Amino acid sequence: MNHNSLKENLDLNQAAHEMHDLLCTLYPICRSITGNGLRETLNLINNRLPLQIHEIPTGTRVFDWTVPREWNIRDAYIKDSQGKRVIDFCSSNLHVVGYSMPVHRKMSLSELQKHLYTLPHRPDWIPYRTTYYQEDWGFCLSHNQLMELKDDEYEVVIDSSLENGHLTYGECLVQGSIDQEFLISCHVCHPSLCNDNLSGTVLATFLGNILSRRSPYYSYRILFIPGTIGSITWLALNREKIASIRHGLVLACLGDPGPFTYKKSRQGNAEIDQCMMYMLNTQNTDHEIMDFSPYGYDERQYCSPGFNLPVGCLMRTPYGRYPEYHTSKDNPDLVTAEYLGDSLEKILLVLDLIEANRKYLNTNPECEPHLGKRGLYKYIGGQNEGLVDQIALLWVLNQSDGMHSLLDIADKSCLDFWLIRDAAHLLEKHGLLIPCA
Amino acid sequence: MNHNSLKENLDLNQAAHEMHDLLCTLYPICRSITGNGLRETLNLINNRLPLQIHEIPTGTRVFDWTVPREWNIRDAYIKDSQGKRVIDFCSSNLHVVGYSMPVHRKMSLSELQKHLYTLPHRPDWIPYRTTYYQEDWGFCLSHNQLMELKDDEYEVVIDSSLENGHLTYGECLVQGSIDQEFLISCHVCHPSLCNDNLSGTVLATFLGNILSRRSPYYSYRILFIPGTIGSITWLALNREKIASIRHGLVLACLGDPGPFTYKKSRQGNAEIDQCMMYMLNTQNTDHEIMDFSPYGYDERQYCSPGFNLPVGCLMRTPYGRYPEYHTSKDNPDLVTAEYLGDSLEKILLVLDLIEANRKYLNTNPECEPHLGKRGLYKYIGGQNEGLVDQIALLWVLNQSDGMHSLLDIADKSCLDFWLIRDAAHLLEKHGLLIPCA
Amino acid sequence: MNHNSLKENLDLNQAAHEMHDLLCTLYPICRSITGNGLRETLNLINNRLPLQIHEIPTGTRVFDWTVPREWNIRDAYIKDSQGKRVIDFCSSNLHVVGYSMPVHRKMSLSELQKHLYTLPHRPDWIPYRTTYYQEDWGFCLSHNQLMELKDDEYEVVIDSSLENGHLTYGECLVQGSIDQEFLISCHVCHPSLCNDNLSGTVLATFLGNILSRRSPYYSYRILFIPGTIGSITWLALNREKIASIRHGLVLACLGDPGPFTYKKSRQGNAEIDQCMMYMLNTQNTDHEIMDFSPYGYDERQYCSPGFNLPVGCLMRTPYGRYPEYHTSKDNPDLVTAEYLGDSLEKILLVLDLIEANRKYLNTNPECEPHLGKRGLYKYIGGQNEGLVDQIALLWVLNQSDGMHSLLDIADKSCLDFWLIRDAAHLLEKHGLLIPCA
Repeated sequence: MNHNSLKENLDLNQAAHEMHDLLCTLYPICRSITGNGLRETLNLINNRLPLQIHEIPTGTRVFDWTVPREWNIRDAYIKDSQGKRVIDFCSSNLHVVGYSMPVHRKMSLSELQKHLYTLPHRPDWIPYRTTYYQEDWGFCLSHNQLMELKDDEYEVVIDSSLENGHLTYGECLVQGSIDQEFLISCHVCHPSLCNDNLSGTVLATFLGNILSRRSPYYSYRILFIPGTIGSITWLALNREKIASIRHGLVLACLGDPGPFTYKKSRQGNAEIDQCMMYMLNTQNTDHEIMDFSPYGYDERQYCSPGFNLPVGCLMRTPYGRYPEYHTSKDNPDLVTAEYLGDSLEKILLVLDLIEANRKYLNTNPECEPHLGKRGLYKYIGGQNEGLVDQIALLWVLNQSDGMHSLLDIADKSCLDFWLIRDAAHLLEKHGLLIPCA
Repeated sequence: MNHNSLKENLDLNQAAHEMHDLLCTLYPICRSITGNGLRETLNLINNRLPLQIHEIPTGTRVFDWTVPREWNIRDAYIKDSQGKRVIDFCSSNLHVVGYSMPVHRKMSLSELQKHLYTLPHRPDWIPYRTTYYQEDWGFCLSHNQLMELKDDEYEVVIDSSLENGHLTYGECLVQGSIDQEFLISCHVCHPSLCNDNLSGTVLATFLGNILSRRSPYYSYRILFIPGTIGSITWLALNREKIASIRHGLVLACLGDPGPFTYKKSRQGNAEIDQCMMYMLNTQNTDHEIMDFSPYGYDERQYCSPGFNLPVGCLMRTPYGRYPEYHTSKDNPDLVTAEYLGDSLEKILLVLDLIEANRKYLNTNPECEPHLGKRGLYKYIGGQNEGLVDQIALLWVLNQSDGMHSLLDIADKSCLDFWLIRDAAHLLEKHGLLIPCA
Repeated sequence: MNHNSLKENLDLNQAAHEMHDLLCTLYPICRSITGNGLRETLNLINNRLPLQIHEIPTGTRVFDWTVPREWNIRDAYIKDSQGKRVIDFCSSNLHVVGYSMPVHRKMSLSELQKHLYTLPHRPDWIPYRTTYYQEDWGFCLSHNQLMELKDDEYEVVIDSSLENGHLTYGECLVQGSIDQEFLISCHVCHPSLCNDNLSGTVLATFLGNILSRRSPYYSYRILFIPGTIGSITWLALNREKIASIRHGLVLACLGDPGPFTYKKSRQGNAEIDQCMMYMLNTQNTDHEIMDFSPYGYDERQYCSPGFNLPVGCLMRTPYGRYPEYHTSKDNPDLVTAEYLGDSLEKILLVLDLIEANRKYLNTNPECEPHLGKRGLYKYIGGQNEGLVDQIALLWVLNQSDGMHSLLDIADKSCLDFWLIRDAAHLLEKHGLLIPCA
């Protein structure tokens, strides 16, 4: 059986290591929802996957939102009275609260402390904080660093700018046989954080690269966007494209060693939901299926009630459930080539399924067609050889009334999807099935 | 959180005792489906809750039925040959079979015995019997009393009348913000029987009283009617009001110490059914949910197939399942202030729920609205404080497509109804939701 | 309760033995999908049940199929060089592969072996093989017989003919009160094989005989057809009759001692499916319910997507699941009068059910009708005698909104179907119900 697998001729192990290499390259860049870190990231992705880079001006209205000012940062530190940098942006870009306003002041420890964020129960780790929609500034540091700060006068510098500019995002369309689209979306707005979500970013990059070297059935639109404001911006500025989205996946947290977690679309029984569950079940891989909830990544926007798109979210360990989440420990050690490779493989398996899953019409719906005269029936009756294949043909013929997909037929017959798919292809070749539009 | 609770400013303990007092006042009256006992009962209720008293003439056609003649009784007894009253209506009105024709005859014990009803397995208890729709007469007595009757000639007197008159019922409408109605129905036709159904009668009285001192959303129509013929009469003579009934409850057997039993409406998933189950589940009170059956109280008529109204029946121990049912032991000792008060509280909780349960439309259904600019989002992102409230806002926005009630959203999100309700109010205040009609 | 049982005045034990006698009479005949063995079989059935015998010419187009040439066989054998018949058609008609072309040749053992079929794991048994749709020839023999064949020159004779002729089938219509039909279908194309399917053949014969002596509600159409090509031919040539088929059963493998197996129609919840499951459950007989699959007997054609008729298949041990299936051991010892009788009884019970299962409309849907004035209510209320019957009346009235069958009401009320049916008849007699069309 040839499943036209997307994995064909792909060295998964090599891809896994290249994904991890790209992740390490992207890791040090200070990204945010706008700014040069995001641009630099998209340019590096562009080397692997040609992107259309969009620049949306500050102030553009996108539904209920407005594209914010562009934030850029050059340096930031806290110096003690001896002039020693006790907190230094250069050592970790998590030290600065994202979207912090520029500051250059001297202040006492007690005044400074109102702007400091730590994780007391993880005293070595630096938390990740942002202040996108409220003008403020702050520093994140390990609790141990905080404990070492003496009563002193500190020079506090954040050399940032918050000015009219642009929101930047990247987009790649892999044209398929039909114009209906499979949307792949990942957020690229986090600074030095790996599982959330450089893992999704590198996976989307490699998926795009692989798909662009195949001839897929669906067209694949791959979005590299800042979280929330990015998907809102794309949806607002691309309303004419929304009706073409037939399936979608948000990719995040896909490089840790945890089992897969699939969060269903708001529809709850969309084809992507069915295919993902079939793949996870048949791969015998430990996994969890979550119902949709309006808390999470950009599926919140795609699945808002006015769109209700069939977009699920694939993760390994979900947001908030691993201790390293949104801390300096979500680093290249947490994410391994092995698990990035495993995630890539499973996503390719799901895409294989959804590419192959069709509905057909039996051209001869009244009684069975005569399989024997077409050489589709073993000629000495009563024997059991080839029986499974025979039964697959009968199942496909019986259920192909335009209402059952091949996956529905596989479920109903308890036969393997690919056996059912091959039966359908054989019947189509003999003119006994025609695909539904 | 202010749940606008109907319990607010209510001394439940005092109400419980006042209900029991009213029950004791009503207990000795000899009620039937027509007659002066019923009138006297309604007049006493009227002191607590102003009622419209309706008098429907004998012979009025009500669907397949006819309003029967009015039955009144002054005295009844069985005297032995020494002139001693061995059975005396004055000592218990259960002694006379309800609707017995007038009798004044002497007869032997053997002839008399054809008209005597006892409970051999409960030799001290007097049963309750009626003969509404067949002209007959009879006495109910304890089995011990029967055993003591000697072979003698007895003077049998029932000083009753069965004449053209009226069927009497009481009605109270508490006008709410909208004309759609919540129907509360109880039967008031039983003589000295407490759980079935003076308990329902006093609860309906106090509920009406409490509601009339609030400003409820729904209009509440409270019916004090004789069983079966009363609901049939009301439905037949008030056809124009039936379409306004949005929810309903029949109240009976609510003063015994048993756990709650809720019998669902014929619809099976009406809003009253959902609210009652939510209340009973969240109150962690032992309870049983029964599917609808066409045997029981006046829900039989409200849920007949031509109406199929969303009317359930709330009881503690249901009809026929407690030994005292329809006997002289269903007296003021079986019913306690404590359990009347508990029943009142739980019904108020259900009314609170149903009053607050609405459907809304998200005014901004495409993507999430920008909560931050309205002060509805914690401004330093990435922290978990206030997360539950945040998630409640997101759930309400995501599900408010006009098809999901707040209770549906609470169920789906596994969040508390009142948290969801408060989130909806907050969003409505900010113009992000509008209530569905 | 009179259930108008089809079993009434029937000596089931006698019928059981007569069925087995008929089976033994039919057993030796060499049947195939066409030819004189099939004609002879239908003529013998005709003695019990008057049949319309149809002869459809070779070459007739029936949907995607063509009526094949007629096959007849007079003799067949394999003689060794001493002239001894080592394999002889006269000793078992299974020895010849069905539809074998005529052969008269001498050949070596090694050449002959390509045309020999055995069951190595059942060395005493002769398998059953056919070659309907591919011109070929062959012999089936026990593996022990094969082992005894020496290296020799053999004379191989199959004195058969494969010529233009007819496909023969039998049909009987028992006219009922209405023209809507219950289809009973059995295949009669197997040679000396008893469970599959002389058991179905004799059951269909006796069912037809019994029904023709009653006055059934439905019209019963009983088909005695060759498998696959027979049902395809009937459907193709009787398109105008298909719309009248309201229920149907394929009968096969009904004489072995195994528990019942019911394979549901493709619809999955047709009335025949409901009735069969109710009967099997209430008879407390061990049984299995199988979902529809497109592999099996003629239900494959009746349930093809262009027809999707409500036709199930009743068996005891299904095709392929008993070791004797399609071998010389499926003989009159495997099938007993006892189990044929048991199968007959259970099918009659199902027909009783489906004949009685109707939908009604309550003529008085607004409130309950006054049962008392029609003598349908015990007149001293409050007693429990006759309560079940009373409740049955109330259930039927409450649910008779034209959407619930009596079987639906029995399921919902957990009352016996026949109690519900009797309640419906009583209510109909009093003008309180009218049957739906």
